[in-house]
Amino acid sequence: MREMKNLKQLGEFGLIEHLSSKFNTYSKRVKKGIGDDCAVFSTLSNTSQLISTDALIESIHFDLKTISPKQLGFKAMSVNISDIAAMGGTPYLAVISLGLPKTTSIKFIDKLYSGLKKSCDLYNIQLVGGDTIASPKHLFINICILGEAVKNRVFYRKGARPGDQIFVTGNLGDSAMGLKLLRSKNKSFASKNHSDTLVKKHLEPTPRIKEARLLAKSNVKVTSMIDISDGLEQDLAHLCTTEKIGATLYEKNLPFSEALRNACLEKEYNPTDWILQGGEDYELLFTITPRDVKKLNRLFTKTDIPISHIGEITNIPKKIQLKKKTGKTIFLKMTKGFDHFKPNKRS
Amino acid sequence: MREMKNLKQLGEFGLIEHLSSKFNTYSKRVKKGIGDDCAVFSTLSNTSQLISTDALIESIHFDLKTISPKQLGFKAMSVNISDIAAMGGTPYLAVISLGLPKTTSIKFIDKLYSGLKKSCDLYNIQLVGGDTIASPKHLFINICILGEAVKNRVFYRKGARPGDQIFVTGNLGDSAMGLKLLRSKNKSFASKNHSDTLVKKHLEPTPRIKEARLLAKSNVKVTSMIDISDGLEQDLAHLCTTEKIGATLYEKNLPFSEALRNACLEKEYNPTDWILQGGEDYELLFTITPRDVKKLNRLFTKTDIPISHIGEITNIPKKIQLKKKTGKTIFLKMTKGFDHFKPNKRS
Repeated sequence: MREMKNLKQLGEFGLIEHLSSKFNTYSKRVKKGIGDDCAVFSTLSNTSQLISTDALIESIHFDLKTISPKQLGFKAMSVNISDIAAMGGTPYLAVISLGLPKTTSIKFIDKLYSGLKKSCDLYNIQLVGGDTIASPKHLFINICILGEAVKNRVFYRKGARPGDQIFVTGNLGDSAMGLKLLRSKNKSFASKNHSDTLVKKHLEPTPRIKEARLLAKSNVKVTSMIDISDGLEQDLAHLCTTEKIGATLYEKNLPFSEALRNACLEKEYNPTDWILQGGEDYELLFTITPRDVKKLNRLFTKTDIPISHIGEITNIPKKIQLKKKTGKTIFLKMTKGFDHFKPNKRS
Repeated sequence: MREMKNLKQLGEFGLIEHLSSKFNTYSKRVKKGIGDDCAVFSTLSNTSQLISTDALIESIHFDLKTISPKQLGFKAMSVNISDIAAMGGTPYLAVISLGLPKTTSIKFIDKLYSGLKKSCDLYNIQLVGGDTIASPKHLFINICILGEAVKNRVFYRKGARPGDQIFVTGNLGDSAMGLKLLRSKNKSFASKNHSDTLVKKHLEPTPRIKEARLLAKSNVKVTSMIDISDGLEQDLAHLCTTEKIGATLYEKNLPFSEALRNACLEKEYNPTDWILQGGEDYELLFTITPRDVKKLNRLFTKTDIPISHIGEITNIPKKIQLKKKTGKTIFLKMTKGFDHFKPNKRS
């Protein structure tokens, strides 16, 4: 096949044909993938079905100067997978809409798809179709993902009660500091090694599917769960939306990496600020009944990703407190994290 | 609630709250709609699941000068529903991603949603969530829709054999002529009445769910099916992609409306060109085994929408012939219909 330079030359149908050839591996449950008006598949009995969709658009969610097409594809899929993890589910199927400027090169599209495919392969997700359209200016990606969970083991945002204990997987704040580094002209405030760690956490997040499944398969009573996309403070607030609950966080237990600690030392930042407000960590934030704390810790002893016991649910409605290392307890101002429609909150 | 003028003032979370209040009616099978990381639902046993996604972007797929926000919402949903109809299925659930310029007024969004909701209500579709993001310039809408079909009664694009008879629902070409009228400075080439019919067919298409269900429930052997979005010629070509088949169309049987006939007379156009190449009709094009022709005609005697017997499948690979009214048979050139990446094919 001769080398195609861009979409205008290849055309819509040429592109569909080109892409279809990359996604011809079906699982038994997918009866028809790419190439018809719909994809056709079956669901497993005794499951609850999960659906989520996320759109990313150039200049708002990503900057092609700081993310490679392969990383973009990988991240777009991973972010969607994280929504399935947040409910305790397992992803199995996805469709993708791409809005492409006419000048987009086929090489770029191939790399984007290699990133999408890498993420799909890692989590055994069948990419069964989508829509590819011209976009007048900006590139956009929309993914719709399906997952499933064992009935009665779906974890919702609402459900926590006063006394429930708050946990989080992994480290927080790395992704936001990674973004800061990507945008910063002077990148020397972190060592090469630490900088790579932080940037990687931002560009190639790992959705916590393994940990979500571990929880779902256990008999730990998980009373609420969410993935951290907007920052700990804001996502914890999402768990406290009922009239009756708030939360206390223990500063000394908030988990962060050596890389974040070093970057903060260098710039005289307080790591706690990055942990509370930094978004896109894609770690799982969840609450459990107090009597299951030991059971949970045992469950996670052998996992690669640690969990941290970072606080507890209170009966102070909609207030989040921080018990500082100094012993003092303060109410957090609940400044909102990333809001797409507010100007420049992140820059 | 005070009057909000645009998104910048309302913010992302304010908007989500504002929209959620409009979609709080759940069916029994939807356990969780808007407001969590995923929507949670169940599927019916003994069904095949169908999934499709379609993206529309301003300046490529629609022009806000010629379509109202309510019509845009209605059409965006209807186009997706048509993909479910094309497989013989019934839609039941959808998620929507909206990319909105920051200056979008809340009034505009409300009207857009009223159109989406009107279509959902007509076809009993639960709108269970989505993603709302800022778009740097152009408005876009992505819908992902789920449907289901009785097992072994899913109709695919591939499956027709030589001798199978070709049918189509409704009239063809109206939508393309409606678009021509919308874009034309001189609209007087069609009477007000006819012009309204044609424009309505373009702006408010009716997906043929009722007719698809009628076929699915019958014992007519449907060997292939597609909905006409790119034009009869091109979509028929999609049914003839295997090495072994082609098709003959009978010009005298091609169905078109009085409105199209009149507009063509006025402009000295040949209606057949509009029927063959005009897109976005969203009628069903399907083939059946020859022995079921009578059965099919009986099935459709009492329906509002007529069907037309427009041709048959041949053994001339990938060639579409037109048997003209004059008796002469010509091979169609198979010019492609609307291709998003080719410049200005429709204007």
